[in-house]
Amino acid sequence: MKHLLLAAAAASLALPVTAQESAPIPSPGEIAAAASASDWTAIAPSDLLVLDLAPDAKGKPRRVVIQLMPAPFSQGWIGNIRKLAAAHWWDGTSVNRVQDNYVVQWGDATEKKALPEDLAAVPESEYETNEPPGFTAAGLPLAYQAKPSDPSPSSFKGHQIFRDNPSWNYGSFFQGFPYVGVMNPHQSKIWPIHCYGMVGVGRNLSPDTGSGAELYTVIGHAPRHLDRNIALVGRVISGIEHLSSLPRGTGALGFYETEVERVPIASVRIATELAAADQPRFEYLSTESDSFARYADARANRRDPFFIKPAGGADICNIPVPVRAVAK
Amino acid sequence: MKHLLLAAAAASLALPVTAQESAPIPSPGEIAAAASASDWTAIAPSDLLVLDLAPDAKGKPRRVVIQLMPAPFSQGWIGNIRKLAAAHWWDGTSVNRVQDNYVVQWGDATEKKALPEDLAAVPESEYETNEPPGFTAAGLPLAYQAKPSDPSPSSFKGHQIFRDNPSWNYGSFFQGFPYVGVMNPHQSKIWPIHCYGMVGVGRNLSPDTGSGAELYTVIGHAPRHLDRNIALVGRVISGIEHLSSLPRGTGALGFYETEVERVPIASVRIATELAAADQPRFEYLSTESDSFARYADARANRRDPFFIKPAGGADICNIPVPVRAVAK
Repeated sequence: MKHLLLAAAAASLALPVTAQESAPIPSPGEIAAAASASDWTAIAPSDLLVLDLAPDAKGKPRRVVIQLMPAPFSQGWIGNIRKLAAAHWWDGTSVNRVQDNYVVQWGDATEKKALPEDLAAVPESEYETNEPPGFTAAGLPLAYQAKPSDPSPSSFKGHQIFRDNPSWNYGSFFQGFPYVGVMNPHQSKIWPIHCYGMVGVGRNLSPDTGSGAELYTVIGHAPRHLDRNIALVGRVISGIEHLSSLPRGTGALGFYETEVERVPIASVRIATELAAADQPRFEYLSTESDSFARYADARANRRDPFFIKPAGGADICNIPVPVRAVAK
Repeated sequence: MKHLLLAAAAASLALPVTAQESAPIPSPGEIAAAASASDWTAIAPSDLLVLDLAPDAKGKPRRVVIQLMPAPFSQGWIGNIRKLAAAHWWDGTSVNRVQDNYVVQWGDATEKKALPEDLAAVPESEYETNEPPGFTAAGLPLAYQAKPSDPSPSSFKGHQIFRDNPSWNYGSFFQGFPYVGVMNPHQSKIWPIHCYGMVGVGRNLSPDTGSGAELYTVIGHAPRHLDRNIALVGRVISGIEHLSSLPRGTGALGFYETEVERVPIASVRIATELAAADQPRFEYLSTESDSFARYADARANRRDPFFIKPAGGADICNIPVPVRAVAK
């Protein structure tokens, strides 16, 4: 992963003498790959939503795996999603919308399919949640961010804190998910945020908040204006290319205009409902680990050989949490 | 463009009574669409690079149009690109790399095609440039950003200023392009930045800066760590879906592993070399206009009917400059 925008060959020839003589500074990916096994956290199959699209034109399978978010975030909608998956409600529905640099959306194109009767109507107040005890135990300054003058990885330890807008806000990670919080004299709230690959719940106009039957994932620059305006329920951890490389829809908002363009969904299951041999297994680099602290610092200050000027900071959505498949 | 994540139908039924009784607040897109003709700036055909891929599997044309950046940015590389286009150098080359949430890259996959002899070797110092006189004439505070408590669009007038990281930096727009600047007691520099659709110059390791023959465009979350590490030369203003929806490469860094996967490039021309009837015509919403100021403010504080909580700020890469085709 060294030569990010390099042509395929001729890499080592161009290495400067100093880099050849001393060990190069590791890239963020190399830091993650070198992390000890104990820094990786297994994702429970009961928290994996497995979306199997119909095979592609060449007959190849297209599996998308989504990790559902942990409490305290969005549990009302996630409860609905578990019920919809258990009812096999999405089987036979389709991907109906692909808007470039924005979202891919799937669900019932007819908008007539009956929903299970026991879904919760979740109030808008659930878009954010009270900060649980312990979230700020690390006591880092709210506005902390990595700067060239303060590059110590230990500054990121525990709760990694990143400055966000507006100034009362801070960003961090909790059990593998990015979130933003606000702490001012009037309130102390946290909420999950829209980064690439995050999965959210389509809705109609307020006060509707969506049931969870209509889902989307982000396939472009983080649409942070949607934070606290729509529920987020998880993120795609494998197979997003099966969604992000779909043809863009030509209708308003990227909706497909004809039935033939829609991409059929074969099935959606919580992984525990699949045969044991078919259950995907993944783990993420613990966002509470020292390795993640070093990884985040390296994302904010690239010093591996390709780079000449570290940025001195990183957008929280440019610190994607590393995930890898577990060999069975 | 009102109902961003709405299912296709049933929109007006859900409108709250107050929204039905008073005119809804316009969305950013509606503000741009309502701007007077004088707020739109024609893009000279001599600044358009027209990339025609081979037709797709169904025989449909795939045209990508890139607007080259104005001075003072990156003019050394842009001079090379004009020479490469005039020499028809890219004809018969290909798209060779598609890395999800990162870049699409094109050029000579063989790495053996001879370059024109008169290309400039541009030094790394050209990744940034001295701030020309007048750039800060508006005199806005460096750390300005839109906040709910200060939503006045007039604050954005002239040079729209957005806070960036680290704190000495500010972000703004110049003749349709986003840039970032740093002003501290030691220097006053500006540089273009990596947002979705921006086009840059692939390179080998430092001190190589690339010739301009190997180009890429951003198809994911803005990789701001590349700023000042690679030259930016323009942005895709039409047809990015022909690049962003290509199958992802399965090799390292998203390179295609086989010849058959590469997407042939039929031709690359500066638009003035095309027949008059074939020359694309575009205009952008002047980033120096009041309309753009209102548009940027609305991006930072969505108040149109779908939204319930304005964000109070926007990443500069989440304020894409509106562009539209001009009827011939």
